Amino acid sequence: MPRGQEPLLQRPGSQNSNDRIEEEDALLTGERTNKAQEGHQHVRSRWREIGLFTWALLATVVVIILGVLYQHKQSEQPSNGDDGSVIPKGKRNLIFMVSDGMGPTSLALTREWRQYTEQLPYDDTLILDDHLIGQSRTRSSSSLVTDSAAGATAFSCGSKSYNGAISVLPDHSPCGSVMEAAKRMGYTTGLVVTTRITDATPAVFASHVRRREMEDEIALQMVGATHPLGRMVDLMFGGGRCHFLPNGTDGSCRADDRDVVKEAAGEGWNYISSREEFDNMGTSAKLPLMGLFAGGDVPYEIDRRSQDEIYPSLEETARSALEILSAETKDSEQGFFVMIEGSRIDHAGHANDPAAQVHEVLAYDRTMAAVLDFIKDSSVPTLMVSTSDHETGGLAAARQLHPEYPDYLWFPGVLANASHSAAYTAHEWHEYLRAKHDAGISELGHTETVAAKAFLMSLTRKSLGIEDATDDEMNSLMNKPDIAAYVFADMISSRAQTGWSTHGHSGADVNIYTSDPKAAKALAGNHENTDIGAFLTNYLELDAELQAVTKELQQHMSSLHPEEIEAFLGSIPDLTERLDGQDHLDHYHGDHKRYAACGSCTV
Amino acid sequence: MPRGQEPLLQRPGSQNSNDRIEEEDALLTGERTNKAQEGHQHVRSRWREIGLFTWALLATVVVIILGVLYQHKQSEQPSNGDDGSVIPKGKRNLIFMVSDGMGPTSLALTREWRQYTEQLPYDDTLILDDHLIGQSRTRSSSSLVTDSAAGATAFSCGSKSYNGAISVLPDHSPCGSVMEAAKRMGYTTGLVVTTRITDATPAVFASHVRRREMEDEIALQMVGATHPLGRMVDLMFGGGRCHFLPNGTDGSCRADDRDVVKEAAGEGWNYISSREEFDNMGTSAKLPLMGLFAGGDVPYEIDRRSQDEIYPSLEETARSALEILSAETKDSEQGFFVMIEGSRIDHAGHANDPAAQVHEVLAYDRTMAAVLDFIKDSSVPTLMVSTSDHETGGLAAARQLHPEYPDYLWFPGVLANASHSAAYTAHEWHEYLRAKHDAGISELGHTETVAAKAFLMSLTRKSLGIEDATDDEMNSLMNKPDIAAYVFADMISSRAQTGWSTHGHSGADVNIYTSDPKAAKALAGNHENTDIGAFLTNYLELDAELQAVTKELQQHMSSLHPEEIEAFLGSIPDLTERLDGQDHLDHYHGDHKRYAACGSCTV
Repeated sequence: MPRGQEPLLQRPGSQNSNDRIEEEDALLTGERTNKAQEGHQHVRSRWREIGLFTWALLATVVVIILGVLYQHKQSEQPSNGDDGSVIPKGKRNLIFMVSDGMGPTSLALTREWRQYTEQLPYDDTLILDDHLIGQSRTRSSSSLVTDSAAGATAFSCGSKSYNGAISVLPDHSPCGSVMEAAKRMGYTTGLVVTTRITDATPAVFASHVRRREMEDEIALQMVGATHPLGRMVDLMFGGGRCHFLPNGTDGSCRADDRDVVKEAAGEGWNYISSREEFDNMGTSAKLPLMGLFAGGDVPYEIDRRSQDEIYPSLEETARSALEILSAETKDSEQGFFVMIEGSRIDHAGHANDPAAQVHEVLAYDRTMAAVLDFIKDSSVPTLMVSTSDHETGGLAAARQLHPEYPDYLWFPGVLANASHSAAYTAHEWHEYLRAKHDAGISELGHTETVAAKAFLMSLTRKSLGIEDATDDEMNSLMNKPDIAAYVFADMISSRAQTGWSTHGHSGADVNIYTSDPKAAKALAGNHENTDIGAFLTNYLELDAELQAVTKELQQHMSSLHPEEIEAFLGSIPDLTERLDGQDHLDHYHGDHKRYAACGSCTV
Repeated sequence: MPRGQEPLLQRPGSQNSNDRIEEEDALLTGERTNKAQEGHQHVRSRWREIGLFTWALLATVVVIILGVLYQHKQSEQPSNGDDGSVIPKGKRNLIFMVSDGMGPTSLALTREWRQYTEQLPYDDTLILDDHLIGQSRTRSSSSLVTDSAAGATAFSCGSKSYNGAISVLPDHSPCGSVMEAAKRMGYTTGLVVTTRITDATPAVFASHVRRREMEDEIALQMVGATHPLGRMVDLMFGGGRCHFLPNGTDGSCRADDRDVVKEAAGEGWNYISSREEFDNMGTSAKLPLMGLFAGGDVPYEIDRRSQDEIYPSLEETARSALEILSAETKDSEQGFFVMIEGSRIDHAGHANDPAAQVHEVLAYDRTMAAVLDFIKDSSVPTLMVSTSDHETGGLAAARQLHPEYPDYLWFPGVLANASHSAAYTAHEWHEYLRAKHDAGISELGHTETVAAKAFLMSLTRKSLGIEDATDDEMNSLMNKPDIAAYVFADMISSRAQTGWSTHGHSGADVNIYTSDPKAAKALAGNHENTDIGAFLTNYLELDAELQAVTKELQQHMSSLHPEEIEAFLGSIPDLTERLDGQDHLDHYHGDHKRYAACGSCTV
């Protein structure tokens, strides 16, 4: 087709004619036609598309990868909670552990004693050591040195109160506890201790009284019989059976004749009171369940070991409680909240008995291991937080015995040699003297004195692993048998070069531990003990309910006549009144004497 | 062109002929030619390209955004360091603070005393409290209770060693210190203390001896005169001037007649020794700089307050050191490494003097505040890590004074009433007796005894704020003036109900603090004290250099004759030898007596 003769109708877009000419020219000249160029453009366009597609696809893949990574990082970061803690959504469990009376030095003492007895290297640590996140300041509203009641009220209500207060405020009115709020929001609740279940630490979670000594009333509130809100606990394991039995019956320490076990049954409680029943309940255990395994306190671990057929260990009761609570909440919307206490670390501190203490701390450590096992295997997000209410005894891992400058050491081997607590040993000595007394021998003559000294030598050897009792020590034991527990404890302490400053509590900060430093981030570092209470409430998202419970309790109080208020909370204590549960020389917590009468309770 | 008549040479790729036919057909039929389709394809292709381009561009933008976000999250997360700590890239400074002898209870004691004296609410805390991240286990290779030498060697070398070891290993061979490695890698280095600069804690960073008592040799090594690697420190502020002055000259406590100040000048050191020189050096201070402000220890803060014109405070020397080190490294590739020690918290513990101790701890707290101020304003990433080498005294914030069960309290007001340390007070008493002695009165008669007792009553009132000294206390002071410091300290402690178990150290875990929990994440929780040494080295990325320094020091030792080794490190100590620096009743660190002779040193 000659140039210029293209059909008029030919659409301008079509450049066939030119194409051909160019193509022919190209054939003649060997140069590229536009057509060839367009072909190339076609190819280039295709390649461009492929390139663009590849770019887009790659970028999208990178977007997806980065998106996932970012999401992942995001989820690793603390995001929920006012306090920077990562609170899981939906169903969750909270395990609050209390190492009553365990100060920072108890850890070094127990760790080094364990390294010694188990021949472990110097860097082999306790389970606790792997979970340290902070410390708690323990003072109460009434003193720089708290008692367990005010210390535990800081945990239960998140408020400072006076020494002796069981979930009541400084104005003596009741404050709602995190356990009560949890119960009302559908959580299943539990208390597991080795002291009396009516003692201050467990008491604050499910009762309100103005004096910790009101354990008879506490027992009634805890089972729900006299609690204004009804039963707030689903499971209780511990000691203190004597407060549940009517006055006059075997093993009772109640002042009145109310049968709290019977009243508890009326509130729906299942009740067990022996190792056998504990072992046999299996998975058939039904809540509410109350297991009271001792009249008073469960014996110190150092003594319980040899009475394992009578008393379950804290590790056992804690494991069992977690299984039961877990099974019970399997199909619930809400999980459980349980408080587990190594109650008698404190008592070993009061007794200034380092051998009893290291066994108590190690028992607590094993219990924490059991808790961590449970958490690892649990499909429900479960957090463990552990702390102490205060330090007891002013314990020091060193002691100067002479005016000469002390060597830098202490002797864990001395603690390892002891097979029983000082309290148990004193009980044996008292039994010996009682037998003499019962045999009509009120004053020991020469022969009896020689025999008694021989008995003491044998006792200290067998019970405390001490072969070299001094004359001074023997004379103290012979002449002042009422303070024998203190003398025996000091025989261990001085030989181990373990120091104590008091038989009471001290104002030291105590440690905070957790299973999950991210979830418990709000408790990292140094905190007021009330921050721990606030954290428990916050973790279970119970802030509003806690306020509602407090309001309801206070309204209840306001609705009562003065004498009814006294029946509920007790009278308002005098300013001069001693409220910290300490009333006798060598009778720490006032219980030593009180529980001496009851069958299976500790000496 | 009819079908089938296309030139043979026409390239198959060219489809002009078909195009035209199709175009014509299209004109006849009104249907779209492939050509039109191709035109559309062209357009579609263009749109497809635009679409792909937009997709790719958007995806790329998202990649960039996510990348930046991820990077941001990443940088927030612990990522560097084997230990999970976030180590900044490039230039950095490290400030290592040591609170010698400060156990966990010192904090509660100081916090509550400060709340009392400054009338602060119960939740007003120390600066330290806001920076707690963990605890350190302190035992040495030779004992469950460390001394400061082994404790500090764990920091300097990252290795456990025996009590008394100054950066030597249990086999008595030298180990490289983090400061030596830092210096060799271009860091500027400093030591700021309130004890003698030759005392154990500062000594381990820049010297190597087998007994901490070898302070004369330590002085020589620290200035570089006898250090196998030369001068390793650029700045030293503290006390201990007497070890730098030749025997026989005023204020010397050296056993030989080497003039270490002069030798230091030979090594390039600038030297100041007074408050006036300290105040006047301004920003013109040139490194290396040695400021020795006391013959022995700088006085306790409780006493220094009233001698401020003689002795700068730790806060002042620390601030000044940071300014100088910062200015010096302004244009360097590497930053600085400085150790700042609250040295005499330990001494107050040895003295069982709670009033002296709370002032020491608060001075340390103020120094930490100054360090944090510096860090906030520094353009170079700067990390502060603080810990103790051990606890001293077995301090308890409670003390039982009678067989009766103790009240739960202690009295900070008693500490607030004291205006001087027990040591200072004893010094005043000794001066009184010395004056009598110098006046020829060796035995006090009745009149002198009455006068002496009146002086003592006045002294305890003025110095300790005690109005009710008992007869027993007065008799102890009169009859045993050599232990007066202990009696005075106990007068305070018993009235405050502050407990102590020993005049030596104890095995308690001690606290770890930091300015940046992310950067020091590796030290969160409970750690062996050697982990702290490892962290310091790791943070400055000096692991390889530390090994190189150790190798070089050990090679140096191997190259020496036995008598040269002894001159360098000292002889190998006997197994029975006491190495912890404690040799006399009431002369903690053996210095009480030794430094009594020198002019401006503390009593």
